[in-house]
Amino acid sequence: MAGSSFGTLFKITTFGESHGKALGVIVDGCPAGLSLSEHDIQVFLDRRKPGQTKISTPRKENDQVEILSGVFEGKTTGTPIAMMIPNTSQRSSDYGEIAVTYRPGHADFCFDSKFGFRDYRGGGRSSARETAARVAAGAIASKILSSMGIHLTAYTKSIGPVSISDDHFDPSAISETSTCMPDREADARASAFLAQCMKEHDSAGGVVECVVSGVPAGIGDPVFEKLDAMLSMAVMSIGAVKAVEIGDGIAAASRKGSENNDAFYADHGQIKKKTNHAGGILGGISDGSEIILRAHFKPTPSIFQKQHTVTNTLENTELEIRGRHDPVVVPRAVVVVECMTALTILDACMKNMTARLDYLVDFYQS
Amino acid sequence: MAGSSFGTLFKITTFGESHGKALGVIVDGCPAGLSLSEHDIQVFLDRRKPGQTKISTPRKENDQVEILSGVFEGKTTGTPIAMMIPNTSQRSSDYGEIAVTYRPGHADFCFDSKFGFRDYRGGGRSSARETAARVAAGAIASKILSSMGIHLTAYTKSIGPVSISDDHFDPSAISETSTCMPDREADARASAFLAQCMKEHDSAGGVVECVVSGVPAGIGDPVFEKLDAMLSMAVMSIGAVKAVEIGDGIAAASRKGSENNDAFYADHGQIKKKTNHAGGILGGISDGSEIILRAHFKPTPSIFQKQHTVTNTLENTELEIRGRHDPVVVPRAVVVVECMTALTILDACMKNMTARLDYLVDFYQS
Amino acid sequence: MAGSSFGTLFKITTFGESHGKALGVIVDGCPAGLSLSEHDIQVFLDRRKPGQTKISTPRKENDQVEILSGVFEGKTTGTPIAMMIPNTSQRSSDYGEIAVTYRPGHADFCFDSKFGFRDYRGGGRSSARETAARVAAGAIASKILSSMGIHLTAYTKSIGPVSISDDHFDPSAISETSTCMPDREADARASAFLAQCMKEHDSAGGVVECVVSGVPAGIGDPVFEKLDAMLSMAVMSIGAVKAVEIGDGIAAASRKGSENNDAFYADHGQIKKKTNHAGGILGGISDGSEIILRAHFKPTPSIFQKQHTVTNTLENTELEIRGRHDPVVVPRAVVVVECMTALTILDACMKNMTARLDYLVDFYQS
Amino acid sequence: MAGSSFGTLFKITTFGESHGKALGVIVDGCPAGLSLSEHDIQVFLDRRKPGQTKISTPRKENDQVEILSGVFEGKTTGTPIAMMIPNTSQRSSDYGEIAVTYRPGHADFCFDSKFGFRDYRGGGRSSARETAARVAAGAIASKILSSMGIHLTAYTKSIGPVSISDDHFDPSAISETSTCMPDREADARASAFLAQCMKEHDSAGGVVECVVSGVPAGIGDPVFEKLDAMLSMAVMSIGAVKAVEIGDGIAAASRKGSENNDAFYADHGQIKKKTNHAGGILGGISDGSEIILRAHFKPTPSIFQKQHTVTNTLENTELEIRGRHDPVVVPRAVVVVECMTALTILDACMKNMTARLDYLVDFYQS
Repeated sequence: MAGSSFGTLFKITTFGESHGKALGVIVDGCPAGLSLSEHDIQVFLDRRKPGQTKISTPRKENDQVEILSGVFEGKTTGTPIAMMIPNTSQRSSDYGEIAVTYRPGHADFCFDSKFGFRDYRGGGRSSARETAARVAAGAIASKILSSMGIHLTAYTKSIGPVSISDDHFDPSAISETSTCMPDREADARASAFLAQCMKEHDSAGGVVECVVSGVPAGIGDPVFEKLDAMLSMAVMSIGAVKAVEIGDGIAAASRKGSENNDAFYADHGQIKKKTNHAGGILGGISDGSEIILRAHFKPTPSIFQKQHTVTNTLENTELEIRGRHDPVVVPRAVVVVECMTALTILDACMKNMTARLDYLVDFYQS
Repeated sequence: MAGSSFGTLFKITTFGESHGKALGVIVDGCPAGLSLSEHDIQVFLDRRKPGQTKISTPRKENDQVEILSGVFEGKTTGTPIAMMIPNTSQRSSDYGEIAVTYRPGHADFCFDSKFGFRDYRGGGRSSARETAARVAAGAIASKILSSMGIHLTAYTKSIGPVSISDDHFDPSAISETSTCMPDREADARASAFLAQCMKEHDSAGGVVECVVSGVPAGIGDPVFEKLDAMLSMAVMSIGAVKAVEIGDGIAAASRKGSENNDAFYADHGQIKKKTNHAGGILGGISDGSEIILRAHFKPTPSIFQKQHTVTNTLENTELEIRGRHDPVVVPRAVVVVECMTALTILDACMKNMTARLDYLVDFYQS
Repeated sequence: MAGSSFGTLFKITTFGESHGKALGVIVDGCPAGLSLSEHDIQVFLDRRKPGQTKISTPRKENDQVEILSGVFEGKTTGTPIAMMIPNTSQRSSDYGEIAVTYRPGHADFCFDSKFGFRDYRGGGRSSARETAARVAAGAIASKILSSMGIHLTAYTKSIGPVSISDDHFDPSAISETSTCMPDREADARASAFLAQCMKEHDSAGGVVECVVSGVPAGIGDPVFEKLDAMLSMAVMSIGAVKAVEIGDGIAAASRKGSENNDAFYADHGQIKKKTNHAGGILGGISDGSEIILRAHFKPTPSIFQKQHTVTNTLENTELEIRGRHDPVVVPRAVVVVECMTALTILDACMKNMTARLDYLVDFYQS
Repeated sequence: MAGSSFGTLFKITTFGESHGKALGVIVDGCPAGLSLSEHDIQVFLDRRKPGQTKISTPRKENDQVEILSGVFEGKTTGTPIAMMIPNTSQRSSDYGEIAVTYRPGHADFCFDSKFGFRDYRGGGRSSARETAARVAAGAIASKILSSMGIHLTAYTKSIGPVSISDDHFDPSAISETSTCMPDREADARASAFLAQCMKEHDSAGGVVECVVSGVPAGIGDPVFEKLDAMLSMAVMSIGAVKAVEIGDGIAAASRKGSENNDAFYADHGQIKKKTNHAGGILGGISDGSEIILRAHFKPTPSIFQKQHTVTNTLENTELEIRGRHDPVVVPRAVVVVECMTALTILDACMKNMTARLDYLVDFYQS
């Protein structure tokens, strides 16, 4: 099944296993003329790098990106941009037991069911390392969006029972806390909670929120390729995500219409909304407000307690996972959610350029 | 933007506006040899028909489907199946005011922003009537899945503050209650709540749950086309859906790994799970358990109270919507969620047939 | 197999069998704001209508198109345009024998091999009637291209041994001769040749040429989606086409480089070519010259002579086809080639709008 | 524009410029369980390697492939197979002049028109070196097809005025002659012709033919994704191809139906054809006979004579190309045509596995 591509006009295709030679991505459809260096990509990759804090795996993955094509004299040429991230920290010996024993909460059994066997080293293709390739592509999308006046901010909204408070919202904390929470007080509590989880050989889940400003009204499509539908696919395709919300999301389902509708008003020649319960999307199309989404991540399935499971020869057994695993994926997933959101919105913006006949006529006749 | 298609191998493309001549769909890629009649489709369409109960719009939409192609002597031929549902109940006069005034919570403003103008009659392409075409296609997908041993059940999980109780779960109630709740006691309370909403000229949201049994382990793809990612897109593409959950969904984010992992065990030569927090999908691939998802619907934005809004010439104004509108879309959306789920799972099953070399060799060499 | 769609941004999906209820097409991705009436479509459909001349089948196919969606108050809305052409002249009784006997040169046996059975009436889905749906879509593409300054002209280049002469080229003859040849003298000879074919119960092949003016340099893509590759697919997908040439085509293969290269020169601030052996495309991208292609059609396989063949139960037999069949498909195929070319070029022009970063920035920031 | 992918279920995406760091390809959708080594790929790459004979460029391109992902313990895993071919022989200094001067017959001007600038070194993305990535992917497709009983043979049919003779057809000569002609006598004459071309600082074109045996009846799709349409796109997407023929191709257009139809007959429980004018495809679907196609290549545009052209600042000038260029691309293109054919046929075979309901039911219920 050819399911490793995402996007229509700004299309990415990823490859690579956790312990293979390299991960990477081809970005096909990137407009020509963008200034682009490996540094632009590296900044994003460093945001998901493990081994940075005590709540992250002690693996040293350098994740150094190399651009193989599509950039000439510092600018994108409009041809495919291939990027490669060699795998350098591969302790395959950690993974011997899981070759035959299915880890609960992991895709081992599903891969074997589908493909007959699998690259079991470190999760292989199902490893969260795969998201490094997405981030490399997302870095390019973000840079393009930025030049169009569209900006994204993602952060940790909650970890386990600890949520950020709007009262303490501090954007500078996102990059400075180990949890990527924009609330230093919540970060402290979440860190304590995670320390306790680690002590108990357990793990935690959490929520990432992403806010996009500057998206003009009109982006997205009426039916299947609704902007929120594409965002949901994008975000749900990140391993460990179990729910996606747009705007007020789940809360909307228990409200009345009079509470949930956002009133429009005119303000200096622009149409705005008094509230933004909708999260910036109505009928699948952006309304000019901030786009807001949340991804709910399950707790890391790799825990260091004894678990009941089976082998690939159908024997009941117990498994005690060893190795290096984050007690929570959320802080490192923040940049992944941001990048998948960027990829989706850029693709929708590009598709929108042919929505009206006068766009075409102006483009070709002027 | 060409966003009216869904699916890769079992691909549907819908057309039609609320008050145009007809709605319809082309199903391309339907396998040959399926017994199919208009009755098979009509049974599904009748499940979303309005005017059936007091909590539904009093419009009389007959929604009679006509098969135009792709069926010969009662069997599908493998060529495109076009289906048309003529629009017969079109009281366009109800919609004069909204030609120029943007309804809060609706896509009117977004459509105008995107396309420059819109077919404003009854919401045009953004009307929930568009889902009739999806249901017609989903009826075919469901019939195929059924012959493969895969069965779907969708129902209303909650309306406003009223949720069903597992203790009262009664599948027969789904088709017999006006709320499509599998719990007659909850149905009674929800109906009372809706009556109150209507009295207040207000509306309600709610939740639809869909359960799929019989999906073998191995369906879905590791990265972007994860089965849960495709399901999320499918379900979020239904108008008014603001959140999607897989399995325990949002609840997983506040759990510990030891609470959320599903232990495997061997049972009579099969691998099973002691729990199903995952909702039948791990790493984007089905694990052989029931697939469970929930769609959260916002309250109907068409309420009969006075609302603040703007005109398309940017004048602030007040709008009082008239016409015929359901106080809640959830009961009629149940079959839509079921159909979008069926379409997604069938497409994934079809793609899975090429996952292994021996599948190809057996198919072509035997 | 879902192979009934063509195009990425301007995407069409056709349906219908020769003797089913209707043929039709959904045009998805048509820009909003195009003035469009059924008359615009009908003019194109009438160009492929049978029963117009003595060299065409005496069937009376009215081919009246009906627009079902996507047009509001005379303008396209940006949502899918569904068009239906009811089948009115269905003499199914002519086709009894071919239900079980495979016609040489036809797809009967191939359809049965693929799908297990087929709608055998009049060729079913493999009938040339299917191209009516393409023409309906192509009429819209042509109208859009025209507003962009791009114009197409297709005509019959040869029938059997009779070719047009450049010396007698007369564009007005295309619509006035029964062969659609732009050369009245060649038309007379071709008509005589066809009369002789009919007398012998035989049929003829021929060549259609299409010339496109006004395509700016830069349309098309470097690798797989080369403009000439997409045109080849488009034209070869017309039944009975067995070869496609771009520019000088086959002649180029026996030339030397010094004979085949087109020299560039600057002329009033524009780059032009002294010759156009390339047919307007270099490296898959338009060069600003006229785009020229030719489609080579085999003779109509339905001939009224006795032919050796087999039944679907593998008995050797003889078949004498009856019914109403054109002795040559070429004149009616002229508009089909033109329409497939238009669809391909429009789609490529739309995709080209995102080729450079400054296109995006100008579009969204101005 | 995202046009660097080919195929639906067996999908390849290529990257790389002539003088960038590397060329490569991601093969997505390769079935799991295929034995695959770099040697399997290398054998195919070596067939298009330059510097092997006196009629080829004296460049030493080693074209050593490295598999980066998707293979584990010698078998494909079903996940994307990334392959990289580092560029090692890069004499960029040869290409200084063409940075500003447009080479006749090349895509330089078209790339600048489209993207605003280009990687001018060695043709950049428009270089024939790009086809190395296709061959790497095609090697995998060929190996899979072989296990399904489908075999491909491609060879040079003609160079300039010299064609092979059926009387001298000798398959062993394909890999042993420098022209890849299956006719040693024709090879001698073609080699003499090419020597004369080189002496005159000129170049030659030619024709490649590909024959595919073992394709069962039923492969391909009725309308746009006809097998011959997909093959045409595949082959025309190879740089320098200006025409594609299926079966008798162009010859069919001047025949009568009675001459061109292939009579069916039953032979030991199989349906066969007495002739194969159709080249194994009827109505877009394989008929069980050999599939035959021809690609017509223009002469190499890089000739060492003085040519009229313009600069990118629109000055008329003369250009004398230097560097290392094949006087004919045909012998090295033989394996490229074969690989594009293999990729197309494999994808069509994979799509065909869902053509009938009983295929699905048997697959999932047995």
